[in-house]
Amino acid sequence: MKSLYVKDIRAGEKIKASFLVMEKNLAYSQKGAPYLSVRLRDKTGDIEARVWDNVAALDPGFRKGDIVYVQGRAVSYRDATQLAVLDIRKMEDTELDPWDYFPTTKGNVEEMFAALSDYARSVENPWLKTLLENFLGDGELAARLKRAPAAKGFHHAYLGGLLEHTLSMVRILDFLARHYPTVSRDMLIVGGILHDIGKIEEFTYDRAIDYTTPGRLLGHIYIGVEMLDRRIAAIEGFPMDLALELKHVVLAHHGELDFGSPKRPKTVEALIVHFVDDLDAKVMAFQEFIGNSGGEDAEWTLFHRFFERFLYKGKAGA
Amino acid sequence: MKSLYVKDIRAGEKIKASFLVMEKNLAYSQKGAPYLSVRLRDKTGDIEARVWDNVAALDPGFRKGDIVYVQGRAVSYRDATQLAVLDIRKMEDTELDPWDYFPTTKGNVEEMFAALSDYARSVENPWLKTLLENFLGDGELAARLKRAPAAKGFHHAYLGGLLEHTLSMVRILDFLARHYPTVSRDMLIVGGILHDIGKIEEFTYDRAIDYTTPGRLLGHIYIGVEMLDRRIAAIEGFPMDLALELKHVVLAHHGELDFGSPKRPKTVEALIVHFVDDLDAKVMAFQEFIGNSGGEDAEWTLFHRFFERFLYKGKAGA
Amino acid sequence: MKSLYVKDIRAGEKIKASFLVMEKNLAYSQKGAPYLSVRLRDKTGDIEARVWDNVAALDPGFRKGDIVYVQGRAVSYRDATQLAVLDIRKMEDTELDPWDYFPTTKGNVEEMFAALSDYARSVENPWLKTLLENFLGDGELAARLKRAPAAKGFHHAYLGGLLEHTLSMVRILDFLARHYPTVSRDMLIVGGILHDIGKIEEFTYDRAIDYTTPGRLLGHIYIGVEMLDRRIAAIEGFPMDLALELKHVVLAHHGELDFGSPKRPKTVEALIVHFVDDLDAKVMAFQEFIGNSGGEDAEWTLFHRFFERFLYKGKAGA
Amino acid sequence: MKSLYVKDIRAGEKIKASFLVMEKNLAYSQKGAPYLSVRLRDKTGDIEARVWDNVAALDPGFRKGDIVYVQGRAVSYRDATQLAVLDIRKMEDTELDPWDYFPTTKGNVEEMFAALSDYARSVENPWLKTLLENFLGDGELAARLKRAPAAKGFHHAYLGGLLEHTLSMVRILDFLARHYPTVSRDMLIVGGILHDIGKIEEFTYDRAIDYTTPGRLLGHIYIGVEMLDRRIAAIEGFPMDLALELKHVVLAHHGELDFGSPKRPKTVEALIVHFVDDLDAKVMAFQEFIGNSGGEDAEWTLFHRFFERFLYKGKAGA
Amino acid sequence: MKSLYVKDIRAGEKIKASFLVMEKNLAYSQKGAPYLSVRLRDKTGDIEARVWDNVAALDPGFRKGDIVYVQGRAVSYRDATQLAVLDIRKMEDTELDPWDYFPTTKGNVEEMFAALSDYARSVENPWLKTLLENFLGDGELAARLKRAPAAKGFHHAYLGGLLEHTLSMVRILDFLARHYPTVSRDMLIVGGILHDIGKIEEFTYDRAIDYTTPGRLLGHIYIGVEMLDRRIAAIEGFPMDLALELKHVVLAHHGELDFGSPKRPKTVEALIVHFVDDLDAKVMAFQEFIGNSGGEDAEWTLFHRFFERFLYKGKAGA
Amino acid sequence: MKSLYVKDIRAGEKIKASFLVMEKNLAYSQKGAPYLSVRLRDKTGDIEARVWDNVAALDPGFRKGDIVYVQGRAVSYRDATQLAVLDIRKMEDTELDPWDYFPTTKGNVEEMFAALSDYARSVENPWLKTLLENFLGDGELAARLKRAPAAKGFHHAYLGGLLEHTLSMVRILDFLARHYPTVSRDMLIVGGILHDIGKIEEFTYDRAIDYTTPGRLLGHIYIGVEMLDRRIAAIEGFPMDLALELKHVVLAHHGELDFGSPKRPKTVEALIVHFVDDLDAKVMAFQEFIGNSGGEDAEWTLFHRFFERFLYKGKAGA
Repeated sequence: MKSLYVKDIRAGEKIKASFLVMEKNLAYSQKGAPYLSVRLRDKTGDIEARVWDNVAALDPGFRKGDIVYVQGRAVSYRDATQLAVLDIRKMEDTELDPWDYFPTTKGNVEEMFAALSDYARSVENPWLKTLLENFLGDGELAARLKRAPAAKGFHHAYLGGLLEHTLSMVRILDFLARHYPTVSRDMLIVGGILHDIGKIEEFTYDRAIDYTTPGRLLGHIYIGVEMLDRRIAAIEGFPMDLALELKHVVLAHHGELDFGSPKRPKTVEALIVHFVDDLDAKVMAFQEFIGNSGGEDAEWTLFHRFFERFLYKGKAGA
Repeated sequence: MKSLYVKDIRAGEKIKASFLVMEKNLAYSQKGAPYLSVRLRDKTGDIEARVWDNVAALDPGFRKGDIVYVQGRAVSYRDATQLAVLDIRKMEDTELDPWDYFPTTKGNVEEMFAALSDYARSVENPWLKTLLENFLGDGELAARLKRAPAAKGFHHAYLGGLLEHTLSMVRILDFLARHYPTVSRDMLIVGGILHDIGKIEEFTYDRAIDYTTPGRLLGHIYIGVEMLDRRIAAIEGFPMDLALELKHVVLAHHGELDFGSPKRPKTVEALIVHFVDDLDAKVMAFQEFIGNSGGEDAEWTLFHRFFERFLYKGKAGA
Repeated sequence: MKSLYVKDIRAGEKIKASFLVMEKNLAYSQKGAPYLSVRLRDKTGDIEARVWDNVAALDPGFRKGDIVYVQGRAVSYRDATQLAVLDIRKMEDTELDPWDYFPTTKGNVEEMFAALSDYARSVENPWLKTLLENFLGDGELAARLKRAPAAKGFHHAYLGGLLEHTLSMVRILDFLARHYPTVSRDMLIVGGILHDIGKIEEFTYDRAIDYTTPGRLLGHIYIGVEMLDRRIAAIEGFPMDLALELKHVVLAHHGELDFGSPKRPKTVEALIVHFVDDLDAKVMAFQEFIGNSGGEDAEWTLFHRFFERFLYKGKAGA
Repeated sequence: MKSLYVKDIRAGEKIKASFLVMEKNLAYSQKGAPYLSVRLRDKTGDIEARVWDNVAALDPGFRKGDIVYVQGRAVSYRDATQLAVLDIRKMEDTELDPWDYFPTTKGNVEEMFAALSDYARSVENPWLKTLLENFLGDGELAARLKRAPAAKGFHHAYLGGLLEHTLSMVRILDFLARHYPTVSRDMLIVGGILHDIGKIEEFTYDRAIDYTTPGRLLGHIYIGVEMLDRRIAAIEGFPMDLALELKHVVLAHHGELDFGSPKRPKTVEALIVHFVDDLDAKVMAFQEFIGNSGGEDAEWTLFHRFFERFLYKGKAGA
Repeated sequence: MKSLYVKDIRAGEKIKASFLVMEKNLAYSQKGAPYLSVRLRDKTGDIEARVWDNVAALDPGFRKGDIVYVQGRAVSYRDATQLAVLDIRKMEDTELDPWDYFPTTKGNVEEMFAALSDYARSVENPWLKTLLENFLGDGELAARLKRAPAAKGFHHAYLGGLLEHTLSMVRILDFLARHYPTVSRDMLIVGGILHDIGKIEEFTYDRAIDYTTPGRLLGHIYIGVEMLDRRIAAIEGFPMDLALELKHVVLAHHGELDFGSPKRPKTVEALIVHFVDDLDAKVMAFQEFIGNSGGEDAEWTLFHRFFERFLYKGKAGA
Repeated sequence: MKSLYVKDIRAGEKIKASFLVMEKNLAYSQKGAPYLSVRLRDKTGDIEARVWDNVAALDPGFRKGDIVYVQGRAVSYRDATQLAVLDIRKMEDTELDPWDYFPTTKGNVEEMFAALSDYARSVENPWLKTLLENFLGDGELAARLKRAPAAKGFHHAYLGGLLEHTLSMVRILDFLARHYPTVSRDMLIVGGILHDIGKIEEFTYDRAIDYTTPGRLLGHIYIGVEMLDRRIAAIEGFPMDLALELKHVVLAHHGELDFGSPKRPKTVEALIVHFVDDLDAKVMAFQEFIGNSGGEDAEWTLFHRFFERFLYKGKAGA
């Protein structure tokens, strides 16, 4: 349990606390004397830190991505609070809980998982329902689903993000199943719940959010369909056609070859799952970027590299 | 009022009735003798016709796109009914009602318009509400909105299609406004109602569905924003920022420059309107193409040129 | 066993023989009288046929893709031989051997399979060797591999084409393993043998070469990796890293997302397998197209749609 | 009126003068002591400045884009002159004339505007002539047209640049009207004068050249056609067809959807205006880049990011 | 010398005259009896012809692209005049003058060549002037330049088209050299005259306009620079830098790699030559397509495949 | 002859030796005092150097790309050895041998050239054989071929790289000539040897590897075919068709217009040379990047900008 959080640090105080190292750079003075410029964070925010002394001894003791125990003093510098570090060292894994250090979903993970499970139970086709029980009832898989992020980058890139994104999609899909009455609600719900399931193995999210080797070599789309194939194979009598359609929904959910789907949607259900995935991801990315964009009097955000545009924040007070 | 519809024609009967000419081709026999191969339709279906005699006299009297009065006999040919035409001539415009000849929405136009008007009344911002009243309360514009198709091509390409597509979108947008509570419901509803309003001038749909000259030179996106600009200018005191955001939603609703939007979405509302437009159009296009694809034992449709793929109809009985 | 082959038909003879229907079209005379224009083939070539009489009765009895039993007479027409058909009917499946009707590889299938098996036995890594034995030693799979085409279109699009293409690739890969000594020969050989294995389920090739439903919904790349995954799972102790690298080779063998690989090559072995696949397919496509392009005095082929160019045949006699 | 220009600053002098802040960065010394690195300019050139002392007090008093009043001393540093700043503060808007601080066209603005007006008077069609009088005779619009830049980036990106670019285009269009005698000279001249008129609202150029919010949400193409539409509406009896063709010329002048035109040129006049716009912009961009590229002995410029290439300056003395 | 031209044929007359065969197709009657459908032309227009009798004997005697001697009768058919052919045979090359059969420039070839030569003489740089004399003073080359088309397709695709296009470009370039005074007029003029010189070997235009084998294997861009290289090599002392810049202008004149230039323009002269080439080709293509588009009451042309759009012809009478 | 190589430098020693300057940057201390940060190299490796004193005097005396004579002391800094420079000056060209300073092929240049010459002698067509003798027997050309790099960037970008790449390709082509027996071995071998011959003039590689002016204005593809054209012209009687095919192979060897080939491969030999060039370049680029990627415990390389991906190095010890 952390003793002190970033949001509670006040200039002038002595600090003894643990943080995650987001950035670590060695800089040089005129005569070549090095100092360390470090950015630390926990779930409540982030803070700059500097190691001016004893650099050669402290530098080898921690790396970007480590969780470190820091001793020093909070100082005020240019309207911000900064840490002047006296000692900094990597903590043992056993001492810590990742939820303390990473940004996390604002939703309640257990409630979200329960809501998702309710949708799973509402599926009528018995084979699909059994398959979902098989997935969501698997304790280890459920634990990973509750923790995984939806991406490494800027949208839902936090613990619990995958679950939050999945549940948001399923709610929209449930509405669309009523809106377009001839489409298969079962296929939409199951497709929504499982389309990104491969991400629990595509990412590592114990220490830092990054790609795993299977994630880079195979990708979450393939991994997800393979997970489906193995669990379907374990359900005796599962209809081949149903398996085929469901695999297609997952395989095609990126919509275009260019975005990594080896097949494009060829059923209306695959088309809808693709659209809702894209919609929810981009709406969240817009909202996060606008929300994180400071400068309360500016109408525009900084340039968004992925969207290749500036986003409009609107008139102040509007 | 038409006296006889395609779906009621029986082989062996004498026929006197009016139809729309969908296709008209001159074909030649071995020695150069011509005959006319014609495809006729009304709102209930279409039928092949042949003019074997008196071709030189009848040919100049009608063209593709005309509504014609036909006399002849229905004959049975290869399991289908065909018309052997004795006389065929173009009708005067005053004699006919286009709703008899074109495919039309299956929805009830007046009910759909009333539902759309209810959404318009639910808008809270008084300026936007006034603007919508201005549009929907304009009898001539309302009449055109009720009749216009949403496209020339394969999705919603029938009378009333634009209204049907617009209402479908607004219903989804209304849901999404609740789902994403920080977005502006008003902007979504107004954007949804007006995003395609330029189509009532982009298309001609009295005689046949085709592009108008303004439609080809300016396009419905520009035309729609110009319509907005004129009506906003007529509302004294309409806030400039609000006008700007709304124009942006309409201008950006195709999402990408490549698809004809001169600006891409830069607000979350513009993004959502774009997505829902694209989703509803493509879902409908899939469903129409699968629905129109005969051959009840085949699992696959013909090749869809726009989507560049075959669509999966599923196992028979599934 | 067929009684008569296309290459042996002589004008003036009465014909009783079986053929595959490549094309079937209904054409009309001036007064609407129909006749059937049919293209027939067997493994030795193809021939035009016409059904002038009794069309209404014979037409429903066969379709494109059927193998039919034909009675009629060979006639000479414009320097070519044509069949005037008196009777034509679909044959029962039990009566026929597809190798009689389809174009087939010029290679000896058993010899090619034996050569491929020799390469499989030369693999040194025991896990990979076991895996190959598992595949090639499976009689049903081996039978399909011997018969499958490599494509529906113009290169290796004949029975045995997949085996021919696979063996050709493996020979080149074997050379390149010696040429680039630091790459893994084992991975090249196994990747070469298995990269297209999913094609045996992507295509149907009993009646006509076409895509199966799994082929269209999932594609041979996914199907192939799934086949790998299932057989690897059955080998106790198979190293995960090795499985991962091999799956990557198969998944990435189209080289680019645009061509259907959800991941691009990230190992040198995956890169080489991709290149050799592309090279062998295109060299064969060039050679088949130039070889099939008649007109012995022309320097250029017709326009090749896939390559979007004319190919140069060179000076006559050169 | 400015008292001292950059080009007249000599090392060793005390400086009291006003400049525009082009760049402002806070840098840090080894121990974290900050200094300000500033780049200042006026219409005659630019100069580096450093604030070594009193940083915390001076820093909040000005920003990039401000015009500031500076006191300090010019010092010589590495063959260049630099300002050591003692005091620096933002000036009130009322004190200054933007033409003193921004780069400006080398042409005489009034002469260029007079020349453009002559072309406007040479238009024969009375409606188009009236429309041009309406635009150019509007004092406020004329004032903005004289001041606006043609771009934010590297070509004509200076005060008066839009007028210079417009006049250059009109001269070429006048020639082409004689060269291609069947095209409409009137449409070319009017199209040339008005094609970029929306830029006077797309950019802000009082303080710094940047995009306005309407510029980013709607773009100069839409804004320009809207300006046309409003002024045409005010001319009673203006022919609809003529308005349509002219709007098309402006709407289509970027030539391709990808470059922001929602419609591509469909008349020869729209095609020519597009080409001449592109030609004049790129010729000027080449010439400015080559001209600004120092290093008198080098044959090549630096890499040009927009053109994605190095440009050839030729042999010295050639 | 031709005895009769298409424009002078009247229904009812007996015809004995020579024409170029544009299209030749064999069609079939119901019972398989063939007839020939032929389109003939000379420089004044084109006409349909039919061979109803003696088909087997006449068919082998001529091919598409041949110039044929025809005997028959002009008949009136559906408001058009058609030839009923009794005899048709290929003519010997020695009997005919291609200018009688192909469409040709409306300009006077000798006057155009003289005008081009005047521009060549106006070049000031002595090396470039000598080079142009070398080209234009070569009688055989001049003869080919006077006859070559500028393209196989729809713009300037007629005898003399290359010269017409070249002269039109040089006139524009001459104007632009005055308009942009710092560019090299000499380089523009020489670049304009020689940029497409490789086309005289890229096309064959004695019998029909088509690509030559060098045209397809190397293309006119490479061929043109090779022609330059050989003639420059023959001028002792020609400066290397000058040769390099000129070769670059020709090599880069298609502007983009995608359009076949292996290098993009890196000098302002290369940029301008590219633009003017593109402008003149497209303006002419627009004008030819609109001019050839019949239907005097229609506002729009047919769909233009190269431009992928309909072109606007304007209101009738406008 | 160099007296000391990078790999032999030890901390604490005084240094007097020559190196190539790879990077040179001026950095500033807090008060504006400059120092030089320099990266030096020779064929054995590279080392950091700092000039702390006497900067103003030493700075003008050398530039990036120069070979310099350095006096100073090797010091240990952060586990690495660095040079503290007292004096540094550019050396005269006459004093040095470029092979001492650049990275070079690991192969033996003379042996590689001899092997290439053996392949040249194995060509059977006498004209092609003579042509190759003409090229390889030209001492100056041979000397440049032995020294030239294959690229400026990351693959084969070292002295001798072009020869190494060429020989590697010819060996593969020799194998493929046996593998595909109907292709022309002669054309493959000659195409392989000469396809990149223009690179000896595209690059400068005496001082640093960079593009020449002809390299940037014309490119190695054009330059190479021009070299062919000149040498073929000098061989009396060389068959035109053979020249044409060979030029096509060189012109088309980049495979696509986008990659700088003005024509795409239209013969099977041109296709194969293109593929083998691409394969050998990319295999080498993968292997170099993986080989240069330090961090022996990491499974993945850094991001590769050209390939736009991370490359997989595999499990340690695998």
